[in-house]
Amino acid sequence: MWAAGALKVRDCLAATSVTLRRCLKLGATMAKSKFEYVRDFEADDTCLPHCWVVVRLDGRNFHRFAEKHSFIKPNDSRALHLMTKCAQTVMNELEDIVIAYGQSDEYSFVFKRKSNWFKRRASKFMTHVVSQFASSYVFYWRDYFEDQPLLYPPGFDGRVIVYPSNQTLKDYLSWRQADCHINNLYNTVFWALVQQSGLTPLQAQERLQGTLAADKNEILFSEFNINYNNEPLMYRKGTVLIWQKVEEITTKEVKLPAEMEGKKMAVTRTRTMVVPLHCNIIGDAFWKEHPEILDEDS
Amino acid sequence: MWAAGALKVRDCLAATSVTLRRCLKLGATMAKSKFEYVRDFEADDTCLPHCWVVVRLDGRNFHRFAEKHSFIKPNDSRALHLMTKCAQTVMNELEDIVIAYGQSDEYSFVFKRKSNWFKRRASKFMTHVVSQFASSYVFYWRDYFEDQPLLYPPGFDGRVIVYPSNQTLKDYLSWRQADCHINNLYNTVFWALVQQSGLTPLQAQERLQGTLAADKNEILFSEFNINYNNEPLMYRKGTVLIWQKVEEITTKEVKLPAEMEGKKMAVTRTRTMVVPLHCNIIGDAFWKEHPEILDEDS
Amino acid sequence: MWAAGALKVRDCLAATSVTLRRCLKLGATMAKSKFEYVRDFEADDTCLPHCWVVVRLDGRNFHRFAEKHSFIKPNDSRALHLMTKCAQTVMNELEDIVIAYGQSDEYSFVFKRKSNWFKRRASKFMTHVVSQFASSYVFYWRDYFEDQPLLYPPGFDGRVIVYPSNQTLKDYLSWRQADCHINNLYNTVFWALVQQSGLTPLQAQERLQGTLAADKNEILFSEFNINYNNEPLMYRKGTVLIWQKVEEITTKEVKLPAEMEGKKMAVTRTRTMVVPLHCNIIGDAFWKEHPEILDEDS
Amino acid sequence: MWAAGALKVRDCLAATSVTLRRCLKLGATMAKSKFEYVRDFEADDTCLPHCWVVVRLDGRNFHRFAEKHSFIKPNDSRALHLMTKCAQTVMNELEDIVIAYGQSDEYSFVFKRKSNWFKRRASKFMTHVVSQFASSYVFYWRDYFEDQPLLYPPGFDGRVIVYPSNQTLKDYLSWRQADCHINNLYNTVFWALVQQSGLTPLQAQERLQGTLAADKNEILFSEFNINYNNEPLMYRKGTVLIWQKVEEITTKEVKLPAEMEGKKMAVTRTRTMVVPLHCNIIGDAFWKEHPEILDEDS
Repeated sequence: MWAAGALKVRDCLAATSVTLRRCLKLGATMAKSKFEYVRDFEADDTCLPHCWVVVRLDGRNFHRFAEKHSFIKPNDSRALHLMTKCAQTVMNELEDIVIAYGQSDEYSFVFKRKSNWFKRRASKFMTHVVSQFASSYVFYWRDYFEDQPLLYPPGFDGRVIVYPSNQTLKDYLSWRQADCHINNLYNTVFWALVQQSGLTPLQAQERLQGTLAADKNEILFSEFNINYNNEPLMYRKGTVLIWQKVEEITTKEVKLPAEMEGKKMAVTRTRTMVVPLHCNIIGDAFWKEHPEILDEDS
Repeated sequence: MWAAGALKVRDCLAATSVTLRRCLKLGATMAKSKFEYVRDFEADDTCLPHCWVVVRLDGRNFHRFAEKHSFIKPNDSRALHLMTKCAQTVMNELEDIVIAYGQSDEYSFVFKRKSNWFKRRASKFMTHVVSQFASSYVFYWRDYFEDQPLLYPPGFDGRVIVYPSNQTLKDYLSWRQADCHINNLYNTVFWALVQQSGLTPLQAQERLQGTLAADKNEILFSEFNINYNNEPLMYRKGTVLIWQKVEEITTKEVKLPAEMEGKKMAVTRTRTMVVPLHCNIIGDAFWKEHPEILDEDS
Repeated sequence: MWAAGALKVRDCLAATSVTLRRCLKLGATMAKSKFEYVRDFEADDTCLPHCWVVVRLDGRNFHRFAEKHSFIKPNDSRALHLMTKCAQTVMNELEDIVIAYGQSDEYSFVFKRKSNWFKRRASKFMTHVVSQFASSYVFYWRDYFEDQPLLYPPGFDGRVIVYPSNQTLKDYLSWRQADCHINNLYNTVFWALVQQSGLTPLQAQERLQGTLAADKNEILFSEFNINYNNEPLMYRKGTVLIWQKVEEITTKEVKLPAEMEGKKMAVTRTRTMVVPLHCNIIGDAFWKEHPEILDEDS
Repeated sequence: MWAAGALKVRDCLAATSVTLRRCLKLGATMAKSKFEYVRDFEADDTCLPHCWVVVRLDGRNFHRFAEKHSFIKPNDSRALHLMTKCAQTVMNELEDIVIAYGQSDEYSFVFKRKSNWFKRRASKFMTHVVSQFASSYVFYWRDYFEDQPLLYPPGFDGRVIVYPSNQTLKDYLSWRQADCHINNLYNTVFWALVQQSGLTPLQAQERLQGTLAADKNEILFSEFNINYNNEPLMYRKGTVLIWQKVEEITTKEVKLPAEMEGKKMAVTRTRTMVVPLHCNIIGDAFWKEHPEILDEDS
């Protein structure tokens, strides 16, 4: 409700003393409404306190979406960068997200253990994330796909998962990164077979059936002269988003002595920003390097 | 995951016999993953069967959004039409929505009682709705706000409420329409006092404190010569979206006898479309006129 | 907490003005407790309003329990009557139960649609039912098993299921009664084969494998001269408990004229009691005869 | 269902290959039942994995129960010992309980973090605990209340609370022990004032209004010559139940050389038993002394 003036009951729930009197009056009126009882059918979906809350979103029918918008296979860096731009927007707009991890058409956001954002309601966490992500996807599309108009507005689904310990949270993120690795290795070979060797998708699939990671690496190397380990990190590791202090150097007009008039001064400012990394999060090294992420007291 | 070729576990859940063999192979591999156990932390959020599932979404911080985008007060018909366009897109893209109701910056969507869409998972219902709505909002913005560029991607929140009977569902929708009426009457007077009588917002608020509906109607009539009942229906009643059969007349090139060559033929086709209404849904008349909406067997 | 005098926080939640002052004082103190925060970890488990709430309990390891206490097979009427006595106690002690149905070692209790007992918390419904049932089972054991001492205290499990409509509730109860029929027919033949024909349990099981109801009726009739339809209703239909008005005739000493001194007077009183029936609840007849059970307004 | 022979669907869920064939056959039949669909209305109430699951039970209307059964005030050691006997039975009969804590008419049971008992279903945890406790209460009543017959079967309520970390679990138990202390100190003074000074309950309550712990200690000491710290530990600290290895010395008849014929031999055996303690669980000492309780890997 955008038109200042009227009060909704939800405003009253966060009422300050200024509006309290009107709320009470409103409450008195609302209480009389014979429809009001339907509010009681809304279930409480509070997430267990002191746990990590993860929201993971996935593109809806992105196989078709990629087809229609001519995504490059196996990886389209424009699409990946757009996903990351949207995830950064989510982290900047919403509260309490400490880390995010994305790959392909999915992104996971981790809210801090003791977040009390919207009283930890699961529905609030997931709908704010997916709606902000979805509107950003359309909003920023043109920055990444200059020559490719967006044909229709895409959908995303989301879910909430609650992890009670640092270990289970780290294992969740490791699971997603392992998934990225498995899929990307497969896709890299698959599309090499299709695009360079001229196999049909079905032939490529049959060729790869039952192969292990080592087999796939070998095919890439011997047949296509590709060392998989030299593939771009973003493709192999996905994208980790964390908050980091960044030194910004800006120039600023300041009042200076007469002899320096008109000159500008370089000013250094420290800002905390969302920064993308393409590193291993499986294993201890990352978490040791960034202990503040899981530090419960931060 | 858009790059055809790789399989995710989720694909296996809906696997046909064609992909089953690969899934089993994948399953065997995945089972070995030491991170796989984190999947068990996802809670089941199935909605009670045989109940109406309502998803309501609300604009996030739309007070500010309306301010920044110079929405006309108390009602901006461009904004209302855009909301309805997005809601229509949601109904066309998702499954099983039988009716929707919108007012101000909120929209409610009702999934049919026996819907089994995504196994009735609450998270699927609400995230698909809000993400499709949010991406559509940006996508269609320019069709409604030609001269007003969109400054930033907006957010929405959503929730799921389950109603066990036709009566409780109708009371829910009546509650939202009653809310529309109360707010719109208030806002109409409030902004008349501010825009036409030059009161400050605070003065207008104080003037209206404690007034009943009859008082507000009287102020509108005696001071501003406004008969509230003549205000546009869309403002007073909100918007109802239902499926209706519509006759479409199209022209089509067909093979015709030589003497008629090059002529076109008018073709009539019946399509089921999402149609907006601005009528009363409080009371029985609407439901008697549209019995198919709540007919459980449809 | 039984010792009058002290107040627990839970008492404060239902505080009258008499105790309110102490509660506020207590609250002030409790608020300081650094452990108090752990209360927030308790989840809300409210049952959806306007729905039937069913609690079903089952004996734990009753196969072993029946063995140890020499239950007669296939039906021990002492055990069935004890179950029903416990169920009656549950209905008399707890609030808002409108009907119960039992068979074998299970009993289902239906709370009325609009019950607000303990704010409809699922945990309250199920734990009150099973604990009252379990303590009654031991308490009344001797009234039914005079010669058979109770060797150890039995356990029961319970669950809550919520049904949104009269039809789904009736289908639930029909499901249980159909289960009673299927099991009792099977057991009647099985034990006739074992007890009268001298088959081993395994032989009896193999004999019955793949047989339909008609086959089983035929075996009973041709081999054991048993017409299954003449078996006791309690075994074939289970037990339905409902509330019924009962006329009680009691004698009462009253002050009478001198010439009648010492005489007693018969007094008729109407009481509402829990009454056991062994009738069909599958089909409409029962519900038409007892419309008050499902009448939402009662 | 106690009569061996028939199969219920639940038996099939845990079917071994031996019974599997019959289950499949049963499943085929069951699938045809038109009532079977009601099973889908049962909600999943799985507790979050890797968390401590606490079941707390409370006596229902135990104020009245204590009155009717002449419990000694402020503490009746018979009643407390009976509660502990029931709690021990619960720990012995059910799986995976690592510690319990009781005071007054309540008992809390802690299931181990990684318990997978009944697939961690909350309803199973709580109903098994309260039903076993309730039946035990009646079963063992006479062992503790020799001269006081049990007048009616008591009820208990239960709830499940999930704690994600050792710290939150310890704080939960500390909260209950702090509650024990606060109530017991209050009750000790209250009943001294009533029983020894002849105050009415209302007068005693008013006398204690607003007093702090120090004040209450002072009243006890100066007016009744009671040093609260010398009161029995069981009253002041409640009862902790943990598993401990206990050396049992039994005598056993064994085959011995001829010259020792007829003699018995003392045999030492180590058993793990549920042992009651009345110690502080607030603070670190207890947990350091018993590290195995919270050790996740045990």
